Amino acid sequence: MTSDEDQKQSGGWVSYRPEIKILDCTIRDGGLMNNHRFADETVRAVYAACVGAGVDYMEVGYKASKDIFPVAEHGPWKYSDEEDIRRIVGDNDTSLKLSVMADAEKTDYEKDILPADQSVLDLIRVATYIHQVPTALEMIQDAHEKGYEVGCNIMALSTVPEPELEEALALLVQSPIKALYIVDSFGNLYSEQVSYYQDLYTRFAEPKGITIGMHAHNNLQLAYSNTIQAIINGANMLDATMAGLGRGAGNCYLELLIGFLHNPKYHLRPVLECVHEHIEPMRDELAWGYDLPYMVTGLLNRHPRAAMRFKENGGGDILEFYDRVLEGE
Amino acid sequence: MTSDEDQKQSGGWVSYRPEIKILDCTIRDGGLMNNHRFADETVRAVYAACVGAGVDYMEVGYKASKDIFPVAEHGPWKYSDEEDIRRIVGDNDTSLKLSVMADAEKTDYEKDILPADQSVLDLIRVATYIHQVPTALEMIQDAHEKGYEVGCNIMALSTVPEPELEEALALLVQSPIKALYIVDSFGNLYSEQVSYYQDLYTRFAEPKGITIGMHAHNNLQLAYSNTIQAIINGANMLDATMAGLGRGAGNCYLELLIGFLHNPKYHLRPVLECVHEHIEPMRDELAWGYDLPYMVTGLLNRHPRAAMRFKENGGGDILEFYDRVLEGE
Repeated sequence: MTSDEDQKQSGGWVSYRPEIKILDCTIRDGGLMNNHRFADETVRAVYAACVGAGVDYMEVGYKASKDIFPVAEHGPWKYSDEEDIRRIVGDNDTSLKLSVMADAEKTDYEKDILPADQSVLDLIRVATYIHQVPTALEMIQDAHEKGYEVGCNIMALSTVPEPELEEALALLVQSPIKALYIVDSFGNLYSEQVSYYQDLYTRFAEPKGITIGMHAHNNLQLAYSNTIQAIINGANMLDATMAGLGRGAGNCYLELLIGFLHNPKYHLRPVLECVHEHIEPMRDELAWGYDLPYMVTGLLNRHPRAAMRFKENGGGDILEFYDRVLEGE
Repeated sequence: MTSDEDQKQSGGWVSYRPEIKILDCTIRDGGLMNNHRFADETVRAVYAACVGAGVDYMEVGYKASKDIFPVAEHGPWKYSDEEDIRRIVGDNDTSLKLSVMADAEKTDYEKDILPADQSVLDLIRVATYIHQVPTALEMIQDAHEKGYEVGCNIMALSTVPEPELEEALALLVQSPIKALYIVDSFGNLYSEQVSYYQDLYTRFAEPKGITIGMHAHNNLQLAYSNTIQAIINGANMLDATMAGLGRGAGNCYLELLIGFLHNPKYHLRPVLECVHEHIEPMRDELAWGYDLPYMVTGLLNRHPRAAMRFKENGGGDILEFYDRVLEGE
């Protein structure tokens, strides 16, 4: 790429690229650290900060099946029932769009996702592991026919064999998705790897007018920088969370991302305030964010669950943990 | 750059580039958070971990003037007297080289830096602000004539007007330095800016056979990723610290960097162990690492001292702090 093209694609150091949209998934991804049990006051504060900051989308939670996941055992943002969302946002008379994540095989999407004209939601994001793509395609079609914008997140990218990935991409770009996400579930990728996969995704998505999205994890402290790399490469849908709140090592920090983008529609102050007053105070209890155990799982390209278990059990010998993860725990 | 050149320069995803050297500056940069007062046990543990990890250089501290900085008010690593270093390392009968940092105008280098054959030190790193370059050049010549390897760090790069920077580079590459460092003192740069400055440094340094070094700060969580970017661009001297311990938001994490490089001479386990047993236990007291106040100074391209003061005074209203820094506190 020439530096002229670089400049054009990234929007320069002072100007901005108006196509870029931010999706805040603080409550959705953060819910994985407290079983989706946030105080209404917290969800309301995040919503108000997203509106104030000019964020484009806020993802409020999952649409999990109540048959698979008993309601007594989880907080409301596991299911994101219409009445729970409306308790926070009313009719959402703002420019902020709302989304939920629907995991393939874990969602009763036929009944739990209402027709769009009966819902305050705007975007359905279908999350799928590589072996679930046919199910994801049916969910995408369903959400599209109900009137939603639809996105698709292929999870755990860093573990998918490339021929399977290419086949999945070829199928998914035939579907009515608006955005296709690079999802570094294990926080394993670095910049050159992001660029490599993004080239691949773009080859399939661009001819269909599908936007590339980026959802990063911070196991190697690269969530924000990989999001910048994705921007440089042309991604226009960016996931971030306040203070990086999210599973394990967490996500790209929304306050860093807004500080980086120069679009005057984004405002940093509401996010700084919300992080300071509502998010950071939860850190001791929720225990997200970069640390050695999450670094080890990221480095070794493993799901963070081993680190979460290690930490829940009070930590201990980090070398013994390293060896266990290396051997496939 | 073509992707073939990329591959060659970065050493690929699986192979490695043998020219790359790591300098651990945990005690030196970390000393800025505790006035250079580390327990001997800690310094010994860092030294042992560096030896065990195959790190190339360990920077033990500063060579500060005792006239300017009274001995009663600072710990030993402010001065790095020969007998203090030898108390930790003996005659350093290892492959690890040792360095100190000497700040221009703050060092009685004529008398405090011994001839190399009387010292256990191998490398003198001269740190200079842009207006001190003539002094730095004299210090470089002195250290060179005494028999040391010499490096030079131009501090606070992100605030230097480019004509001054070019003039400084033209002068410094005439001196007998082995390495010229890109120093992002305020943690303000992102990848494209690192590449921009590195192109400039390389244009001056390469014809003289001078290596480019990278010293990053983590205010925007980019210390490690910017170090990766510098590697991709050809830097071969890399600063890092255990758990990122260093002034303010800290530095590039040594454990991340060793996890990234594939040179079999580097070993992660001694670093993991040292971080877990010796470094992380100091975090509450020393309070280094990314947080909102350091993010604000990094974003606004300011020295972290305002954030350090804000934190020492117990924190408070982050928006009021943001406004104060914006207005030049």
